[in-house]
Formats: sequence, structure tokens, C-alpha cells
Amino acid sequence: MDSNNQQIKQYLNTNEDKARLLVSCPDQPGIIASISAFLYEHKANIVESNQFTTDHEEGVFFLRIVFAAQDMKSKEERLKKDFEALAEEFQMTWRMTFLHELKRTAIFVSKELHCLRELLYEWESGDLVTEIPLVISNHETARDIVESFGIPFHYIPANKDIREEVEAEQLKLLEQYNIDVIILARYMQILTPNFVEQHPSKIINIHHSFLPAFIGANPHKRAYKRGVKLIGATSHYVTDDLDEGPIIEQDVIRVDHRNSVNDLKKKGRLIERSVLNRAVKWALEDRVIVHKNKTIVL
Amino acid sequence: MDSNNQQIKQYLNTNEDKARLLVSCPDQPGIIASISAFLYEHKANIVESNQFTTDHEEGVFFLRIVFAAQDMKSKEERLKKDFEALAEEFQMTWRMTFLHELKRTAIFVSKELHCLRELLYEWESGDLVTEIPLVISNHETARDIVESFGIPFHYIPANKDIREEVEAEQLKLLEQYNIDVIILARYMQILTPNFVEQHPSKIINIHHSFLPAFIGANPHKRAYKRGVKLIGATSHYVTDDLDEGPIIEQDVIRVDHRNSVNDLKKKGRLIERSVLNRAVKWALEDRVIVHKNKTIVL
Amino acid sequence: MDSNNQQIKQYLNTNEDKARLLVSCPDQPGIIASISAFLYEHKANIVESNQFTTDHEEGVFFLRIVFAAQDMKSKEERLKKDFEALAEEFQMTWRMTFLHELKRTAIFVSKELHCLRELLYEWESGDLVTEIPLVISNHETARDIVESFGIPFHYIPANKDIREEVEAEQLKLLEQYNIDVIILARYMQILTPNFVEQHPSKIINIHHSFLPAFIGANPHKRAYKRGVKLIGATSHYVTDDLDEGPIIEQDVIRVDHRNSVNDLKKKGRLIERSVLNRAVKWALEDRVIVHKNKTIVL
Amino acid sequence: MDSNNQQIKQYLNTNEDKARLLVSCPDQPGIIASISAFLYEHKANIVESNQFTTDHEEGVFFLRIVFAAQDMKSKEERLKKDFEALAEEFQMTWRMTFLHELKRTAIFVSKELHCLRELLYEWESGDLVTEIPLVISNHETARDIVESFGIPFHYIPANKDIREEVEAEQLKLLEQYNIDVIILARYMQILTPNFVEQHPSKIINIHHSFLPAFIGANPHKRAYKRGVKLIGATSHYVTDDLDEGPIIEQDVIRVDHRNSVNDLKKKGRLIERSVLNRAVKWALEDRVIVHKNKTIVL
Repeated sequence: MDSNNQQIKQYLNTNEDKARLLVSCPDQPGIIASISAFLYEHKANIVESNQFTTDHEEGVFFLRIVFAAQDMKSKEERLKKDFEALAEEFQMTWRMTFLHELKRTAIFVSKELHCLRELLYEWESGDLVTEIPLVISNHETARDIVESFGIPFHYIPANKDIREEVEAEQLKLLEQYNIDVIILARYMQILTPNFVEQHPSKIINIHHSFLPAFIGANPHKRAYKRGVKLIGATSHYVTDDLDEGPIIEQDVIRVDHRNSVNDLKKKGRLIERSVLNRAVKWALEDRVIVHKNKTIVL
Repeated sequence: MDSNNQQIKQYLNTNEDKARLLVSCPDQPGIIASISAFLYEHKANIVESNQFTTDHEEGVFFLRIVFAAQDMKSKEERLKKDFEALAEEFQMTWRMTFLHELKRTAIFVSKELHCLRELLYEWESGDLVTEIPLVISNHETARDIVESFGIPFHYIPANKDIREEVEAEQLKLLEQYNIDVIILARYMQILTPNFVEQHPSKIINIHHSFLPAFIGANPHKRAYKRGVKLIGATSHYVTDDLDEGPIIEQDVIRVDHRNSVNDLKKKGRLIERSVLNRAVKWALEDRVIVHKNKTIVL
Repeated sequence: MDSNNQQIKQYLNTNEDKARLLVSCPDQPGIIASISAFLYEHKANIVESNQFTTDHEEGVFFLRIVFAAQDMKSKEERLKKDFEALAEEFQMTWRMTFLHELKRTAIFVSKELHCLRELLYEWESGDLVTEIPLVISNHETARDIVESFGIPFHYIPANKDIREEVEAEQLKLLEQYNIDVIILARYMQILTPNFVEQHPSKIINIHHSFLPAFIGANPHKRAYKRGVKLIGATSHYVTDDLDEGPIIEQDVIRVDHRNSVNDLKKKGRLIERSVLNRAVKWALEDRVIVHKNKTIVL
Repeated sequence: MDSNNQQIKQYLNTNEDKARLLVSCPDQPGIIASISAFLYEHKANIVESNQFTTDHEEGVFFLRIVFAAQDMKSKEERLKKDFEALAEEFQMTWRMTFLHELKRTAIFVSKELHCLRELLYEWESGDLVTEIPLVISNHETARDIVESFGIPFHYIPANKDIREEVEAEQLKLLEQYNIDVIILARYMQILTPNFVEQHPSKIINIHHSFLPAFIGANPHKRAYKRGVKLIGATSHYVTDDLDEGPIIEQDVIRVDHRNSVNDLKKKGRLIERSVLNRAVKWALEDRVIVHKNKTIVL
């Protein structure tokens, strides 16, 4: 896939022969042996590999492998098809992605732009390896900056009363642009279960608190009132339970008695953007596996 | 006051001519001018000074001054007495402490000793400037280590049914030893309102979570279940509301999907001891002012 | 002073009656008493005050006071003039700045834009309270982004052979625009002693290492070769000794064996921009006093 | 192997059927396939696996695998012997360790005890899984604390003139006690090339600076003089080049203008002990591979 972003073009050139495999399945002997034999037979070389097995009752196996093969593009279909049999044998949930295929990301934003900016700049610098075919907002605030990056901006006014129509329009766009990852970069509207259901483990949100502290509205105001000495930010996959989805990344920043609610907001922005940035980067690098209500980041 | 701790003796020698003044009062012009004129007239030199005024409706003024004077010991009574008039004029809540007088600290502990150890070692290294006339515990576990530091150990078995008698005995000891600071270094018993009331803003607790997340029992188990990416520790003054007192210090440590509940406990210990250590140090250095349900750390 | 930046306009409105006083002088009794009496007599109220005295042979006194007075603008000249006498008595080096007067900042940049972007966005969000009358660069790379913020961009090609002419042109611009703070936001040219001399303690640089480790060129390459586990960034005032000026702020970020030199550069950018951002903010808030080869940040 | 440490006994009980394999070799296709097939054939199940290949000219492959098998103790010899052939085929440098066999650690210390204490406590809590058959010191300072843990203490006075005899005695003890890991927990004597040569990649030191800044003596004094805003600590393997060995772990702590050299020393201790603690833990868990002058921590 082509990109107008020079940094990303260059990345694609040097990585077009790589692919990634993400696996989770019930633990049993021989999984790695089978997978690595499979790759060896397909003349693919393992470049990086991380594996983790839960130490508990059930024993669940998780694996992320980056592998390389000459002329990968031509082998893609074959690799996917052949892996099916193996996957079935071990009851795997799995995903194989090819680095020559850029993931496609849609960003949702409202009026606060700090997270959007961070993502656009990290993208422009080649640090977020993705296409961004569109940004959707319920306000016009972000239009100028988005369009200055050559990205189409879709203004879709939203409020509780027209939620259904709004989401129908958004969903249509996501389908039309064939979107893989949806980022809520401080998009202040609640999504309906219908919307969420159509994109399981694909919608990444940033919440401006160290969850589960200060779930819900006005976390900075409540943090100020409680007199905490650190404030946080949490990036998580969106599920039907508000602020309860699987956490991908969190971080905190120090505050003190001199800081007003407004200061907390300003400091909070600094970690919101870095936390969201890391979470998105990991998702784009296929590092994140959702298991029950948690994430495994490999 | 004498100490057997050589490091602390040395500290006292080089600081015996210093004192600290902590003030909070309604803001109005001239407070610092009056206080600094007062110190100048009493031939005291300001060594360090931090001031903070809330920017809000009410306007509350907070000040911490370290000052030095030749032959401070002989001036102590006079300084305190003379300051009364000034304090009254500005409706001050205030405290003047003299560095030649060591604060007296009691440590309460149960079976987990990591916080106790940290405090004892920091004390032995001269980093916690205090006397520790006694350690109180509802178990015998800590006896050996406490006595190896030459500190009396008081074993007072405790449970819900005999809470009143237990606390009566503890309170008697605190009075007898003239205790200034009470540290709950993972003391797993809840104190009654009667106990707390007698030592307002004097009892420092360490809670093994990033409050207000995971208030109450088993925070690590709940943190594990929620899949957080950081766990925390919070040191706060004890009030009647469990885990709701003014926060002095907090910190976090990174965890990941590989960590079991037991791993969280182990990692948690590392920050519990450093957080409690810092909170206690600040309290001993008269840096902490409690204002409503918050702390000002100057 | 007017600003087109709405956030900053609003800040100015709520702070136009405030001023800051920075003082350093030989320590002696009565300094604070005199200063606070002075402010009281001039009907100014102290809002925030931080003081520090070196504990050493010489005893140097440092003070930062924020004070407020009704109708400050009209009192400015009088306050400055009257303070002269006091300053002389105590041999003070001092500076009084008034919040209604925006500081004027010039940014120098080459081809790497991450620090410039951070500063422009923090400025646009109202988090860097300053005017930015111009950006100077030896490349055209930054023109678009700078002009999109409505800021004049001056392209002045530079190389070793024409250093004198280049600096003459730059210095003329700095004088013409009446610049208070000069930021080298990854400006890859070395300034001559003549340039530096004309702006003592006014030029803020960002170096992409944790100084004094990896002084000079290619710090990331050398960090990679040494196998460090953290890389850093350092913001400092520029003096004639390359990378040896007084340090304002530093920070580090974790790296590991998987990171290539290029990865170090990418991670390095994240802290370069936050470190420079903090250093500039502190300078604009008059928090930084240079004393010998160090900074006191109050 | 038996231990008197109850926490460690319990750890051994639950992990006696586990082993670890560390491999480094020239990269080529099929390594993981061969190793995992090998383990599968030996009825061992992979529990955790991390792999990394340098992306450079040469292409070096690194692997750490934790595997489990029923009745591991009885299979130990067979596994090691059979693996030889595989290792030869791929030109592996490798190590297979069995968790039922406790590593044996010797600690060297001088007069500053903070790192020693941290290690002893982490060991007592079961967080450092090792035997500690002896502590060696050139001073008597540590005797009491070491013996209070039931660990033999060897006092061997040392100075430059008797270095050879001293080291001969130390080496004899290390051999006699069959030591696997040697920790210099602030042992202030320089070891000779002869000593170092006999224990390659086995001697772990803690240096009280963020290397390569402040190599050599008095790092805190020099850090103070330079006015840095963070100080560091570095744990590394000892080689013949002083402070130049492969770095295992580093960390920093914030300092400011108020801190004296002595304050830097105190703050430094806090990170020296945590950095050394982590480095030792990783070494005991067979996570560290030395490659040229760097470490791969898997």
C-alpha cells in the first residue's frame, strides 16, 4: 500500500518482507514447536518472539512472533491458508498481519486537540506507522490542523437526541474507508452498544484519570478535591461498560498543593497524549492481545 | 535531647541553633512583613522560606520558615511567648519547633515488616531525624529486629472484641513516652474514633494502593483483577473515614500481564516503603500542613 | 501588551495586577524583613514566596516573590525606582517583572522540528505565556508550520564560513524585535562568543543527552555503543563552553537492547521536547536564577 | 538443595519442575523450531519465551526460555547432554539452569551497608532466590547485621600493598563455597585483572553515578559541582576497565539546588540499592546475556 508520508514509505521499504503472528489458545505442549516448524517449512525466519502463559488454573498461552521471508507479499495468502489447520488443531485465536499492508486508522475528536496533535505529529515523523484516511469530529475546531496534514476531515454534529443517525453516518464512513483502528482522542460523546459491538477490541479511548480512580466525568475536579499527589491517564479498549474496558497503558504525573483544577488539566494533557500515543503505537505494532477484561502487551 | 544514634547526634550538633515556624491563616497584606520583622528583632536569620496562598474565594496563607539564631535554646521560650501576640493579630494557626528537640516517634506494626525495616534503617543512617522510644505490635514477629536496634518492643495482642482495652494500653504508652508522631507501618488494625481524636494530624498511615483507587481491603487482588498497568501506595493522615484522610505522598510502580497477585504484593512493598519513608521525613521536618482534607507540603 | 493568542489574553486579564521579584545577594539578617516591609508600604500583597540560602562558606541568599497590587501598571515605575535603594543597601542582583508585560521569545531551529512544534503548541494552548515575534532558521523546513501559527519566519542560511554575517543579521533581528528569551530548539549551529556575550543567561539550549554524559556530537550513537539503559535530555543556558552551561532541567527515558540508534533518536525526541518545554516555562515564569555555573529554580 | 529461608523453600517447592535455557548464536533459520522440537521430544513444556535478534550486519540470535517437565530433577543430566548436539549444530553459547538448584551468591562489602541491607532483606523476604553462603568485607562494620541473618561473615583486611594475598584468600573462599554470583555491594577495593578473569560475567558492581557520566571517584561531589538535576546509579558486570563493563541496569533520582553533596549521597543510596537489587534479581533469574560490551536482558 502506498502512503504520502515519506517516513512511512521508507519504513515500508525496509520492512516489506516482515509479518507478525499473534496467537492465544489453551496451553498444551508443542505449540511453539509446531508454529516454529511451520514457519521454518515456509522458509520464514523468526526475528522477534515473545510468549507468555498464564500460571493459573486454566493455563492460557499467548504468543507474538515477528517473522521475515523473502518475497513475503507473494506468500501471504499461502501462509494464512496453511496456518488455518494448525490453528484449528490448537484451538487458536490468531491474527497474521503483513507489514507491507498499512493499518488504517480513524481518529475521533471533539474540541480538545492535544491528543489529536500528538498523534498527527508522531504519524508525520513516521513514529505511528499507519494510514489515517479520515478524522471525524462533532465540532469544526480540528478542521484546519487536520486538513493541513492532507487528511480529510468529517464534521458530524452530535448530541444525545440524534445519536443513532450520527453513528449510522460514522459507521458508514468506517466501512467505506475500511478502517482497522478507531481512536477516541478525547471524543466527548458516548458510543452506543451497537457501535461498540461492531468494532470489538478496535476502539481505543483515552480517559483523563488513573482508572479505576475517578471513573466518569470531571476526574480532574475530583482529583483536586481529594488532594491526590499524582494524576493519571488511562488508555483502554472501549466496551459497553463506561471506563471499564481492558487497560492498554497508564501513566501518572506529579501535582501538588499549588496546582488548581486548571493546572491539573494542563498537566493531565501532557500524559494523556503520551499514554494514548504509546497505546496506539502498541496496537499498530500488533502487540496487544485482549484476554477477558485485560490486555497482554507483548 | 540526647540520642544514642551517632548520625543523629551529629545532625543535632550542626543544627541546634535552628528552628522552624509553620503558619496558616486568612490571607491579608503584611503577614510576611510582620513575621520577618519579628524574627529580625529577635536576632534570628531566615535560612529557608516557602509560602503559598490559595488563589480562591477565601484566600488562605501558608508559610514555612526555617530560621537560625545564636544560642537558640535560651531564646526558645521568649520566641514562643512573643510570637503569641502576632499570631493572635493575624488569627494564625501556628507551630514553632526547635531542632535541638528531637521529635518522638512511635511505630505500630503487624506481621509485614518491610515498612518498619525501611524506617529503622533510614533512622539508623540518620535520614529520619527522630527518637523512636517504642514500637507497638499485635504480633511478636517484629520483636527481634526492633530490639536489635535497641528499641523497646511492646507486644499488645489485638482483635475487634478487645479493641477498647488494647487502645487504652496503647494510648497510655503514647502518653507515657510523650509521642509526637505515630506511624502505622502496615498495622492491620482499625483505630477507633476515640483514638484518632486524641492525635489529630499526628497518625500517618500507608495504604497499599493509589487512593482513591482500591479503597479498603485487598487492593492488590482488585488491581490484578482490573488489569491496571501501574500499582500505587498512599501515605495519609488517619481520620475517622477509613482511607479518606489527607494525602501526604503517593507513588506508583509499573506492573504488567506477567505479574501475579503475589508479584503485585512484592512490587507494592518497594513503593510502600519509599512512600511512607518520604511522608514521615516530611512530617519530621515540619513540612506538612493539614488544611481541610488536603495537605500543603512546603 | 496585546496578544493575538486568546488563551494568553485571558491569562493576562486575570494576572495584570501581579509582578515578580527575583533577588540574589550576600546573606545577612533582615533581607526578607526589608523586602516585605517595602512591599507592604507599597500596598502590594505577597502571593507566593520561595527563598533559599546556600549553606556554605559564602552564604548567598536567593528569593523569588510573586506579589499583587491594585492598578499595578501605574505603580510599575515607582516600585522599580524605590527598590533601587534597598537593592543597593543589600548589594542585590535583582529583577522585577510585571505580568502585564509579555516576555518576547525568539526560537532558532534547523531541520528537526519536534521541539519547535512542542513549543508552538504549548504556546497556542496558553501554557507558554509569551509573545513569539519570530522564528529564525538556517533551513526552510519549518516555514510552513511557523507561518500557520501566524508567526514571521526568517530564513538565514548559515555555515561556518559566513558565521559572522549570519550572526550580525540574527542579532539585528533580536534587537529589532526586542527579544528577552532566545530558544535554540535543536538549532544545529554553534554560536560565537560574541553572540553569547550579548545575551548572558538568555539563550536556552536543548542537548540530546543526559549531560555531562555524551557531551558533543552524536550522543545517541555513543549511548547505543555504550549500552546504557536510559537516555537523557538536558536544557541549559548557553555559555562559551559547549554543553557546559548552567543546567536548567534534565530528564531520562528507558531504552533497552532492542532499540537501535534510530529508536534512541525517536525516544530521545519525546524527552527533548518535554525537558525544553519545562525549562522555557520556568524561564518565562522568572523561576530561574543563574549562580556561578548552576541554576536555582524557585 | 535445601535452604533455611522459608520463603525460598516454598518457592523451590512450587518451581522444582522448571528450568531455564539461555542461548546466543549466529542467526539462521530454524533455531527456534529445533529448540522447541527438542523440548517437546523431551516432554518439556515452554512456560515463557523471549527472543531477540540483532537487526544488524552480523545478525545475532538471543533466546531465553523457561520450561517445565514432570520430574525435572531426574531429567537434568539427559537434557543437558542431549542439548550438546543441537548447540554444536548452531554454534550456540548456552546455559541450562534448573530451579531446584539454588544459585550461590557471595556479597562483598566495605563500610557503607545500604546495598547489603537491601539485598539481605530482599533475600529474607524471598524476593532474591539464592543461597548466600558468605559475606566478605575489608571492615568489621557489617559483621553484626550479616550474622543476624545466620550468614557467615569473613573479615579480610585489604589495601593496595597486600592485594595479591587478599585476593588469593577471597578466591579460595569463592571456590570452597562454590559461588555462582559475586556482588560488589559498595566494596571500595579495585579487583585485579587476575581476579576478574577467573569470574567472567559473574561479578556485579554498583557504581554511584549514571555511567558514563562521572566515571571514577567522588561522583556525587562532581555531580554537585556540575549542577545536574538528576543523579544516577549503574549496576554493571565488572571487567578490567574500571566502570566500563556491560551495564545491566540504571536509574536516576531528582535533585535540586537545595541539595548538598551529602544530600546527594543520601538520595543516591535510595537508587543504588534499588538498581543493584534489580540487576541481581535479573542475574539470578538468568535474564542477562552479555554480548560484547552490552547486556541483553530478556
